[in-house]
Amino acid sequence: MAQEATASLPIATNYLGIGLVVIGAGYGIGKLAASALESMARQPEVAGNIQTAMIIAAALIEGFTFFALLLCWIA
Amino acid sequence: MAQEATASLPIATNYLGIGLVVIGAGYGIGKLAASALESMARQPEVAGNIQTAMIIAAALIEGFTFFALLLCWIA
Amino acid sequence: MAQEATASLPIATNYLGIGLVVIGAGYGIGKLAASALESMARQPEVAGNIQTAMIIAAALIEGFTFFALLLCWIA
Repeated sequence: MAQEATASLPIATNYLGIGLVVIGAGYGIGKLAASALESMARQPEVAGNIQTAMIIAAALIEGFTFFALLLCWIA
Repeated sequence: MAQEATASLPIATNYLGIGLVVIGAGYGIGKLAASALESMARQPEVAGNIQTAMIIAAALIEGFTFFALLLCWIA
Repeated sequence: MAQEATASLPIATNYLGIGLVVIGAGYGIGKLAASALESMARQPEVAGNIQTAMIIAAALIEGFTFFALLLCWIA
């Protein structure tokens, strides 16, 4: 039903949704990775721990980003 | 079906979506790479670790960026 | 099919998409290259490593930028 509704819209806004999703995810991962990299330079002896935490946090953002992109596609 | 819906639209918004995707990804990778390069100058002895972490984080952004661009194309 | 739809549109938004793509990529590469150049001035002895990392990060942005510009052309 959502499929037919989209088909009759004058403006397809799902592409705008895709763009906004990537803006949000890119801002989030960019900001946390920047802080992680600066922290690794300040305390090189815990660089491994910081990298692990960075990957966990980035993977969380990555997860809902792919789900949101998928929703923009199939909805 | 989405293809035909797009074909009859008065305004093609997928190009705007492509632009917003690149703004988000460019901001994210630019911000984290800037921090990585400044961190390498502050602690040259961990430059290798920082470069590895930078590539991991940038690859995460790169991943959903290509997926989003592909969706703007085929959706 | 999308080709013919674009041809009959009252508003061609693909040019706006191209512009937004270049804004995003220019901001990203500009930001990371600025940090790279400042870092090379602060630690001239690791200028080679910083330049290598700068080229890697800029190449990642360059990659999806060309793909996005291509999509704005053929989509």
